Order: sequence, then structure tokens, then C-alpha cells
Amino acid sequence: MTEKHPLIGEYTFKVEPFHADFMGRLTLGTLGNYLLNSAGFHAGERGFGINSLNERHYTWVLSRLALEMSRYPRRDETFRVRTWVENVYRLFTDRNFELVDERGGVMGYARSVWAMIDLDTRRPADLLAMHEGHITDYVTDRPCPIDKPSRLKLAPGLEPARSLTARYSDIDINGHVNSVKYIEHILDLFPLERFERQRVGRFEIAYVAEARYGDRLDFAVDEQAEATLVEIRRDGTEAVARSKVIFI
Amino acid sequence: MTEKHPLIGEYTFKVEPFHADFMGRLTLGTLGNYLLNSAGFHAGERGFGINSLNERHYTWVLSRLALEMSRYPRRDETFRVRTWVENVYRLFTDRNFELVDERGGVMGYARSVWAMIDLDTRRPADLLAMHEGHITDYVTDRPCPIDKPSRLKLAPGLEPARSLTARYSDIDINGHVNSVKYIEHILDLFPLERFERQRVGRFEIAYVAEARYGDRLDFAVDEQAEATLVEIRRDGTEAVARSKVIFI
Repeated sequence: MTEKHPLIGEYTFKVEPFHADFMGRLTLGTLGNYLLNSAGFHAGERGFGINSLNERHYTWVLSRLALEMSRYPRRDETFRVRTWVENVYRLFTDRNFELVDERGGVMGYARSVWAMIDLDTRRPADLLAMHEGHITDYVTDRPCPIDKPSRLKLAPGLEPARSLTARYSDIDINGHVNSVKYIEHILDLFPLERFERQRVGRFEIAYVAEARYGDRLDFAVDEQAEATLVEIRRDGTEAVARSKVIFI
Repeated sequence: MTEKHPLIGEYTFKVEPFHADFMGRLTLGTLGNYLLNSAGFHAGERGFGINSLNERHYTWVLSRLALEMSRYPRRDETFRVRTWVENVYRLFTDRNFELVDERGGVMGYARSVWAMIDLDTRRPADLLAMHEGHITDYVTDRPCPIDKPSRLKLAPGLEPARSLTARYSDIDINGHVNSVKYIEHILDLFPLERFERQRVGRFEIAYVAEARYGDRLDFAVDEQAEATLVEIRRDGTEAVARSKVIFI
């Protein structure tokens, strides 16, 4: 570890006009994008980023994301994302995030779980064997005071509340529906009035399988007392993502 | 004019992973966002930006945008947007853009037309009267070698090829469907294969009226020999935007 590459990465962002919602708050999709970018910067600076991995036919795949926000950055506001590695297991690694405003006040936290896959076989790689286990050098026990991603289980037999077809703008460079677009589509299930009265206090998403261009995505919605659970199914059957949204 | 505020603004962007499409090219929606951000920076630095205007109950409204790209910035590529004011009329101003890569090679050009409106009355303001005509100090005759936005007229009687309802993620801070989302929705009318074989060489959009949350947006499509014309209608009748897309 050098001074240039400490355990914790810190990246600064500014909320652009088109990345604020109608309430002037940073959209959760853009925030997700910033978290993924920060993860990419942090890993890249330390030699286990996507560019060095791709050459070796591996890539990082986001498996789960959970975040809690006490306050959202506002239009034109500058804020910082801090990120670090909490754990490295054989097949998964836990990466956490802290969001702070310009005065250093904490705005929220996030937890994420990642796997590395072999681009040829699409099978998970052994993280402890990659780069001679180099990634474990970056583990730190800095606290992340929000609950881990939970098990998301919807009531059985729910009919889809909405369906859409995956189109050009949904598809990333790997040919799959991109992680950020799922977040947008999930929030689009809620009426505008909900965002007027409340904001998303906690958001979770588990990426279960990959959807592709032309797939029909059905959104089953389970409105519970404290949370809304959403399951996205591909072509009527297979779950591709599950999510939990808690408004506060 | 000081050295700090020359006539031409220049801003640097880098293509983030989620802002590249499945071909690895910067998406046109993100490019539109960068152009609008550059316009905002350029105007803001010169005292006629949205923040100084809002205090006076005025805001800039994008009326037309036309762009031509000979090459798209690629994922992770850094490029620059140059922008300047070409003309100022009583009700409209023409702002142009040039996109250059890191070696200074031109990637494309864009033209835009803006009006200023009074936020209370929603009526256009007299640009030559604002700030004592200060904005005309920034006019320059730097060339922009692409055609001006054209008159977009579809064949009569076309049935909509697609309809969607404006949702949470479509709506900006003014409560309207945002300019960038229209671009995304228009490109989503084309099959993925089209972007595989070709790329958008010229794109035009005219913003005619405002759409709001819950509005049904119908997309009428007129496939011509050289171009595709699209009209977006609100609730089946009133045109809110028209577009022309030329693949090369």
C-alpha cells in the first residue's frame, strides 16, 4: 500500500441538471452509476479493475446492491463517494460505500456484493487465486452501519403490474440489460406523488440472471407494510432481478 | 471579454462505462446531456446561465438541436466539447458545438436554438433587452459546417408505431419530460441490428410543446429513403417533439 493508493478510495461528483429528479434530488439510477464508477476507479487504481481483467478474459459482475440515504445530494451539489473492500471470499467480495457532503456530513451508505466471471465460460472465478490473492491486501474493517442485503422473497402467485420490452437504450456493452436501467425501471413503477411525499430511504437489488435485447420484462410487485418488493421476470418465468424499496 | 472568459468555451468529458451503448459508442442521450451541460457552463461563466436567470424568474429552453457525428467517442475515451454563440435574435439564440478527440481531430458538430422564457408567464423574453443586450458581446462567426435544423414534416395520417406513458424517470425539475429522455425514446424505436450495421450520422430534434407526468406519448414514424422522421404526440393529438434520424 502506497500513499497514492490507500485502502479507501474517494471520488468527487457533482449533480448535473439532468441527473436530478423533479424534486431536485439526485436520481437513484445516477447514484448507482456513481457507485459503480467509484468501484471501478478504486479497483482499477489497485490493479484489479475491469481493464486489467478484460485482458485476462475476466470481468466483475455486480450481484447485489443495498443503499440507505438519509439525504440525497441536490442539483448542482458536490459530494464525495468513499469506497473500500470489506471482505474477499472465494467467489464473492463485499465492497462498501459512504457518501459525504462538502462539509463532511454523511448522506448515506451502500453495500455491494461482486463476483468475477470468466468471459469465455461465464463461470465464476476464484478471487483468492486471482493475482496471487493480491485483492485481500485491500480489505479493511472500516464500519458500514447499514444492514447487509436481505433475502428478497415475494408472495407467490403475483401477476405482473407492468411489462416492457428491453430496447436499445437498456443494453450495455456486454449485450445485457444494464444494472442502472433496472433501477430506473423499478422506480418507474411508483407514482410521482410517492416521490413528492416521501423519498427512498433504503433500496436493495439482487441481480439473479441476465436479460437481453428483445426480452419481455414482467414486473411483479408485492406491496408490504414497510416495503415494496419487486421481481423482474424474463419472458414470464425466470427471475432476472429482485428488489426491495422502502420509502421514508 | 477577459482571457478567463473567451468567446469559446471548452469542456472535457470522459465516456463512462454505463454511457456507452452495446457497440461501445457514447450514447446520443448522454452526448445530448454533455452538450446541454456545456451550454450551461458557457452561459454560466458569462453571467447569462440558468442560476443567474432563475433568480430573475427566467430560464433557458432548448428549442432545436441538430448534430452530425463522423465518429463517436468510445467507452473510456476522453473528448472535448467546444461551444459558442453564433447569433442572438430577439426571441432566439443560436449556439453551436464542436466535438474533438484528444488528438484534436473533429468528431462532429452540433447546432442548437434556444429561447428564454419567463417562469411566471411561460412567455418568451426579449434576449436583446436582457442584461442590456450583454449576451451579444459573445457572438462569434466561428464556422459550424453542418446544415441548420430543417423543417420536419411527416406524411399525414400516420398511426403511432409505439406508445408509452411518461413516468417518474422521464420528468425533470420543471415537471416536464426532459430533453434527453426524448432522445432515448426516439432511438429505442429502432431495432438493435440497425445500430450494429450503422450509426446515427445526423440527428435532429425540435421541441414543440411540453409533456408532463402521466401523459401518453405516441410515436408516429415516417420511414423515408434517406431519413426517419418521428413525431411524438401527447395524448393522441398535440405534437410535443419532432425528430429526424439519419443512419450512415
